[in-house]
Amino acid sequence: MDVSIPKRTQVAIIGAGPAGLLLGQLLYKAGIDNVIIERQAPAYVLGRIRAGVLEQVSVDLLDEAGVGERMHREGLVHEGFEMLWEGRRHRIDMKQLTGGKKVMVYGQTELTRDLMEARQASGLPTIYEASDVALHDIAGTHPHVSFAYQGQSHQLACDFIAGCDGFHGVSRASIPRNVIREYEKVYPFGWLGLLSDTPPVSDELIYVNSPRGFALCSQRSRTRSRYYLQVPLTERIENWSDEAFWQELRLRLDDEGRERLITGPSLEKSIAPLRSFVSEPLRFGSLFLAGDAGHIVPPTGAKGLNLAATDVKYLSNAFIEYYQQGSLEGIDTYSERCLRRIWKAERFSWWFTSLMHSFPEDGPISSRFQEAELEYVLHSEAAARSIAENYVGLPLDFGEEA
Amino acid sequence: MDVSIPKRTQVAIIGAGPAGLLLGQLLYKAGIDNVIIERQAPAYVLGRIRAGVLEQVSVDLLDEAGVGERMHREGLVHEGFEMLWEGRRHRIDMKQLTGGKKVMVYGQTELTRDLMEARQASGLPTIYEASDVALHDIAGTHPHVSFAYQGQSHQLACDFIAGCDGFHGVSRASIPRNVIREYEKVYPFGWLGLLSDTPPVSDELIYVNSPRGFALCSQRSRTRSRYYLQVPLTERIENWSDEAFWQELRLRLDDEGRERLITGPSLEKSIAPLRSFVSEPLRFGSLFLAGDAGHIVPPTGAKGLNLAATDVKYLSNAFIEYYQQGSLEGIDTYSERCLRRIWKAERFSWWFTSLMHSFPEDGPISSRFQEAELEYVLHSEAAARSIAENYVGLPLDFGEEA
Repeated sequence: MDVSIPKRTQVAIIGAGPAGLLLGQLLYKAGIDNVIIERQAPAYVLGRIRAGVLEQVSVDLLDEAGVGERMHREGLVHEGFEMLWEGRRHRIDMKQLTGGKKVMVYGQTELTRDLMEARQASGLPTIYEASDVALHDIAGTHPHVSFAYQGQSHQLACDFIAGCDGFHGVSRASIPRNVIREYEKVYPFGWLGLLSDTPPVSDELIYVNSPRGFALCSQRSRTRSRYYLQVPLTERIENWSDEAFWQELRLRLDDEGRERLITGPSLEKSIAPLRSFVSEPLRFGSLFLAGDAGHIVPPTGAKGLNLAATDVKYLSNAFIEYYQQGSLEGIDTYSERCLRRIWKAERFSWWFTSLMHSFPEDGPISSRFQEAELEYVLHSEAAARSIAENYVGLPLDFGEEA
Repeated sequence: MDVSIPKRTQVAIIGAGPAGLLLGQLLYKAGIDNVIIERQAPAYVLGRIRAGVLEQVSVDLLDEAGVGERMHREGLVHEGFEMLWEGRRHRIDMKQLTGGKKVMVYGQTELTRDLMEARQASGLPTIYEASDVALHDIAGTHPHVSFAYQGQSHQLACDFIAGCDGFHGVSRASIPRNVIREYEKVYPFGWLGLLSDTPPVSDELIYVNSPRGFALCSQRSRTRSRYYLQVPLTERIENWSDEAFWQELRLRLDDEGRERLITGPSLEKSIAPLRSFVSEPLRFGSLFLAGDAGHIVPPTGAKGLNLAATDVKYLSNAFIEYYQQGSLEGIDTYSERCLRRIWKAERFSWWFTSLMHSFPEDGPISSRFQEAELEYVLHSEAAARSIAENYVGLPLDFGEEA
């Protein structure tokens, strides 16, 4: 990709995943100059298979960024999902339980593609395959980013740096250890995922707690399915032929699922660990962490991309307020506002993960607590309402006093 | 106490706590002969300070047994309780959230006294201070109980034995190990309780999660208070003067609580461990476990006595159906019906304990999950409704399919 490398910008964005691209687009629309620096090539970014469930808040933000057109055309609005336990399905009617809220099923890959096209159209620079990215003077008000591109060293001066470069990125790692605190929980299993061009087994997502472990029947479109299986962390992807995957999935489904499941060759197959992670605070000087750079949720409940979107919403608002009104309000409250929402989504993702997976190592009474909780949750309207309101996303002002 | 010792009865009841006495009374009213055998003296039984919050189901059962008169006169109907966290109180309006349900605050000691009086009036024998109690031939249909009383050995033949003799009693211990399964969780702290003849700090109960640990402001009447503090399991009661207790309680309360707290000399002070425990099944041959003999909950949420009452309800119905209609239906389904309810109360008691206590050994992210859960629960009507419906007691037919 041919780019001219600027020497200065208002906001340097590290990472061209959905968080970085969306932030860039929102700033662009507000007339704020920005440069995105990405370690990988575009094809690599597009190749990452991730979540596909968007909360209304995220949908609204994509519309605000002007990138929602294809999503509305091709995405699938879901008004509920199913929980399968002891061979029976229980539907969580999100729409009815939350007074009309829904979610949008639209693959992160598609969303990233839309954002990349919008970026291209904006004419703002995105520097892919930048190596040796390093952040400098982030404690003060005149930071800069250094990196190598096509064998040349570059420096980009800026007012702010947005760290949208994920869990393993350079941004969080650049903050001195003594000013951030990291919270982490690693789960004793992973998700083995398979993507295939087959029609989904059901119109809605199915979360399965079976004696053989968790399974999830998800989808990206009416013709593309995404299925997951809980597997031990020691499991190796080489041991899972497509046929083995489908066979194990069948064993975790109910009769209806087994009957309707349409299998096909995998487009992608991988094992991902599950992690809960939060870094506090999300701001250090002129560096702001957004998305996976600052926090990770286990994928149960699909909160990861939605949290990234909310971070970006708060961060773009903060920068816009700063440049348009000279206000530091949004900048100074960014970390706290994000973290309030993040911890509640972390709590929900942890809880939903705990409810739906097998934890044999936690001992027999924990399994019975889990069974009792499922029996309770699946028969209590109050509990179903609680799941639903978390699943569609708590209101942005949740918990704020009137 | 002077008693004539019968040689045979229909139902031998082991244990003269509230479960045994209530069962005896319900059977007596149905014309079913029964004998209660208790290891301790009446004064000892009355001296045990326990829970004081009765669900509507329990209140109804006491009325059915004809022992509710003083409870309705002296007991306090509570329509809500408070949760205190980060210096702020949040009221759980049980009545409003559950469509009119309430609880009755009436000390277990008072209830036991009422039941003892009713027992006395019934003329049925209660053998206190029976030693060497042993159950025989419980696998078959002709069991008997042997025991010593005032230096004499006795045998009591019966059709059924009701094991109402608590966690440490002989009943559960008499079941062969290979036919029961026990589930247990021990918590890393205890409750230091203090009873005093002082007016309660508030009209309603206050459950406190403070940085110094859990506290509970409970009450037995308008002039008798019961307070609890979370303490390490290693704590010794000798180290807690009344003054030290009140001082620590003050530190865990809010300003309003500190201001209104009226202290006084303790009538009783003790440390109790917290335990979740369930034994399955609750029936072996002609022996039926009821109450603490079969299951223990941590006291958070006051489910212990209420679960005992439900067991007794199902068990008395089962015996009445058997003797009046010759039906084995209630007897054969006793264990399963009780356990459905027990596990849901065990789940709630464990969850409410987990939400309100300090668990420093679980690590920093668990504390943050707890904080996020409190912030969520205390601001979500759905979550408050879920707490309320569990606190007042789930409907007896909860989860049963129509």
